[in-house]
Amino acid sequence: MDEEGYGMLGRMEVALGEIEGCREFAALIPEVRTNLVYAREQAGTREDVLAVDGRITVVEGLPRAAGRVKFGASSHMARLIIELRRVDPFMRAGINFAWTPHLSAWLGRYCREKGWVFSVIDRHGEPEEIREAEGASIPWKVAEAVRAAEGRVPKVFYETGAIGKEPVSVLVGRDPVEVAGQACEIARNYHGDR
Amino acid sequence: MDEEGYGMLGRMEVALGEIEGCREFAALIPEVRTNLVYAREQAGTREDVLAVDGRITVVEGLPRAAGRVKFGASSHMARLIIELRRVDPFMRAGINFAWTPHLSAWLGRYCREKGWVFSVIDRHGEPEEIREAEGASIPWKVAEAVRAAEGRVPKVFYETGAIGKEPVSVLVGRDPVEVAGQACEIARNYHGDR
Amino acid sequence: MDEEGYGMLGRMEVALGEIEGCREFAALIPEVRTNLVYAREQAGTREDVLAVDGRITVVEGLPRAAGRVKFGASSHMARLIIELRRVDPFMRAGINFAWTPHLSAWLGRYCREKGWVFSVIDRHGEPEEIREAEGASIPWKVAEAVRAAEGRVPKVFYETGAIGKEPVSVLVGRDPVEVAGQACEIARNYHGDR
Amino acid sequence: MDEEGYGMLGRMEVALGEIEGCREFAALIPEVRTNLVYAREQAGTREDVLAVDGRITVVEGLPRAAGRVKFGASSHMARLIIELRRVDPFMRAGINFAWTPHLSAWLGRYCREKGWVFSVIDRHGEPEEIREAEGASIPWKVAEAVRAAEGRVPKVFYETGAIGKEPVSVLVGRDPVEVAGQACEIARNYHGDR
Repeated sequence: MDEEGYGMLGRMEVALGEIEGCREFAALIPEVRTNLVYAREQAGTREDVLAVDGRITVVEGLPRAAGRVKFGASSHMARLIIELRRVDPFMRAGINFAWTPHLSAWLGRYCREKGWVFSVIDRHGEPEEIREAEGASIPWKVAEAVRAAEGRVPKVFYETGAIGKEPVSVLVGRDPVEVAGQACEIARNYHGDR
Repeated sequence: MDEEGYGMLGRMEVALGEIEGCREFAALIPEVRTNLVYAREQAGTREDVLAVDGRITVVEGLPRAAGRVKFGASSHMARLIIELRRVDPFMRAGINFAWTPHLSAWLGRYCREKGWVFSVIDRHGEPEEIREAEGASIPWKVAEAVRAAEGRVPKVFYETGAIGKEPVSVLVGRDPVEVAGQACEIARNYHGDR
Repeated sequence: MDEEGYGMLGRMEVALGEIEGCREFAALIPEVRTNLVYAREQAGTREDVLAVDGRITVVEGLPRAAGRVKFGASSHMARLIIELRRVDPFMRAGINFAWTPHLSAWLGRYCREKGWVFSVIDRHGEPEEIREAEGASIPWKVAEAVRAAEGRVPKVFYETGAIGKEPVSVLVGRDPVEVAGQACEIARNYHGDR
Repeated sequence: MDEEGYGMLGRMEVALGEIEGCREFAALIPEVRTNLVYAREQAGTREDVLAVDGRITVVEGLPRAAGRVKFGASSHMARLIIELRRVDPFMRAGINFAWTPHLSAWLGRYCREKGWVFSVIDRHGEPEEIREAEGASIPWKVAEAVRAAEGRVPKVFYETGAIGKEPVSVLVGRDPVEVAGQACEIARNYHGDR
C-alpha cells in the first residue's frame, strides 16, 4: 500500500464513522444498499477505487458497513466515479442513496439553496445499442447527467428507474469525508422537513 | 419469548450458518440482497416472522448476515410468506435470490428433475388498481404464482422485473434449515453446471 | 441439529440480545472477556455446551458478542458448568464477569438479599498436584465452591486471582435467558449503587 | 481529523487486514485478547493513540477485530507505547500476544537470529509503592524493559505474570503495518517449528 492509499483508507474510515452514526441516513438507504466510493487521483479501473465490501445496510435502525473498506469492492459506483473524474478530476468520491418523487423534489430545492448543480439521468433516453454494449452504459450516463445540467458537472443527480432497476440518487464530491457529511446533512434536513 | 420462538430462532441460526458457509450462494445474492424468513405457525403480521436485520450481503466473497435474526425485520418477504401460508399452512419459510434468464431456464429444469412446482409472477399482469392499493400487491402475487402453476403451491417461483424493481427468485419450504439447504444445493449445482 | 439444540440456540440468542443491550454490563466485562455457556441436559464434554465464539467484548461502550453461538466454543466455562451439573443437574447455564474487592463485597450483600448462595473458590488452596494434572482443576474448583458454601450449590461465586490468572465472578442458573437477565440486573444495580 | 490521523487510520486498517488473515496468529492471542496500537508522532495521552475498540479476538479460528479502530480505544497498551516513545521516539506502534515458557524460549532464539533486542519486565521486581501509585506502573515497566536489555530499547519483550495478571509478550515498531507483519511472521514461524 502506498501513502495515497493509506490516507484514502483513513478518510473512508472517518466517513463511515459519520454515516454509521446518522440514524436519519438509514431511511435513505435504498433496496440495493448504499455504497461509498473513493477513487485514486489517477484512477483508471475499479481496482483503483475504495468501496465498502458488502455495501452499507441498516442494522438496528442505523447504517452499518457490512464489511471492510477495500480497493475493488464496488463495480457500478466505482465506474461511475471513474467516468465522472474524466469530466471533473476533483470529483473522486460518491455515495448513492434512495430516490422517491418526494425526496427528488425536495433535493431539487435543497440543491438550489446550496448553489449545487442538480441533474438527472433519464434511463428511458438510453439508446438500446448502448444499453447492450458491455461497459458503454456508464459513460453514457455521465454524459447524460452533464448534458441535462447544461454542461455542468452535477453535485447531486439521480438515475430514473428502469425495468429491473431501482431508481437511486447520487451525491459526489472531492473526498468521502465531505461526501458523507453532506449526505448525512441531507438526511437530517429531509427528515426534519417531513 | 415463548417455546415456539426459541425453536424458530435456533433453526434460523443453523440455517444462516449453512448459508454463510456456501460460497456459491454468494453469486446468487441479488442487488436488493437476500433475506431468509420464518413465520410462526399462526403468523398474522410481519411481527410474527423472523428475518435477518439488514439482510444477507456478500463480504469477502461469502454470504454474511448483516445483523441479528429478529421478529419483524423483513417486510416484503415476510408478507409474502404470510400470504403463502394462507394457501398452504406448511409453507413457513422462504428465501429470495437472484434471477437471470439463464438461471431461470436452469431452475425450470432443476425443479422438473426434483419434482418441484416452479412458477412465475409476471408483474406485467398486475392490475394498476392493485399495484397502487396499499397492501394489495402481495395477495395478488401469491394468487398469481398459484394460478400460473395451475392451482398448485410452487416450491420455487420468480417475480419478473418491473420499472424500478429487480427480478428475484424465491424458494419456500417448511422451515429455514430445509430452505437454506435447498438454496445452497441449487447454488452449488448451478455453479457446477456453468 | 436436534430439537433440544434448536431451542437452546434460540435461548442463547435471546440472552445475548439482552446482554448486548445492557450498557452497565459492559463495565463488568473482565480482561479475559465474558462468555455465556449453556449445557445440554446430558452434557458430557465441551462439545455439548453452547458458547459465544470469540467471547463477549465491549464495542462502542456496549457488550458485543464477537462471533456466533456454537457448541464447543468455550473451554473453561464449559467445563465448569459440566462439572457443576454433576452436583446440581438443573444448573445448565453460566456467565463470568469481573471481580474486584468492592464488587465482591457488594455481591455478597446482594446475594443475601436475594436469598442466593454466594461462594468463593480460593485458588491458594488448590493442591499443587491438582493444579498440574490435566483436567483435574475444574472438578476441584466446583467441589471447593460447594464446600465453601457449606455443601450448597452456589448461585454466584468467584475465583480468586492467582499468578497469571485474573479473578472472575461467575453466576449460574437453569438457562441463559435467566442467567443473562440476572447478570444484567446485577450490573444495573451495582452501577446504581456506586 | 488531520492528515496525520488519516494516514495512521489507513495504516491500521492495512495492518488489521494482515492480522485477520493470519490463522497462525489466532493461536497467539492471549486470554486478555490482543490489541494493536499506533501513537501520533507527538502522542501525550491515550487519546493520541489508535487502537481496536473491543480488541482483537478469535472468531472461526481467525483473528477478528471486534470493533472499529479509534483514538483512545486502549488504555494499557496505549500508555506503554507512549512511555516507550519517550525513550525511542521512533517506536510508535505495538502489539501484545500470548506468553508461555516455550514461546518465550523460542522468541529469545528468534530475536537473536533477527538481531532484535529481547527483554523482560519481571513484575516481581516492581516496588510496592509503584504498583499502588496510580499511573506509576507503566513508566517503571518501560524503564525495567530497557534496564533488563542493558540500556537498549527492546524490539520484543514480555511481562511476567503476577497475581491476577496474565503474562504477555509485546512487539513494538515504527508503524502498525511493520508490527503486524512481524507479529504474523513470528506466528507462522513458531507454528512451523512446533
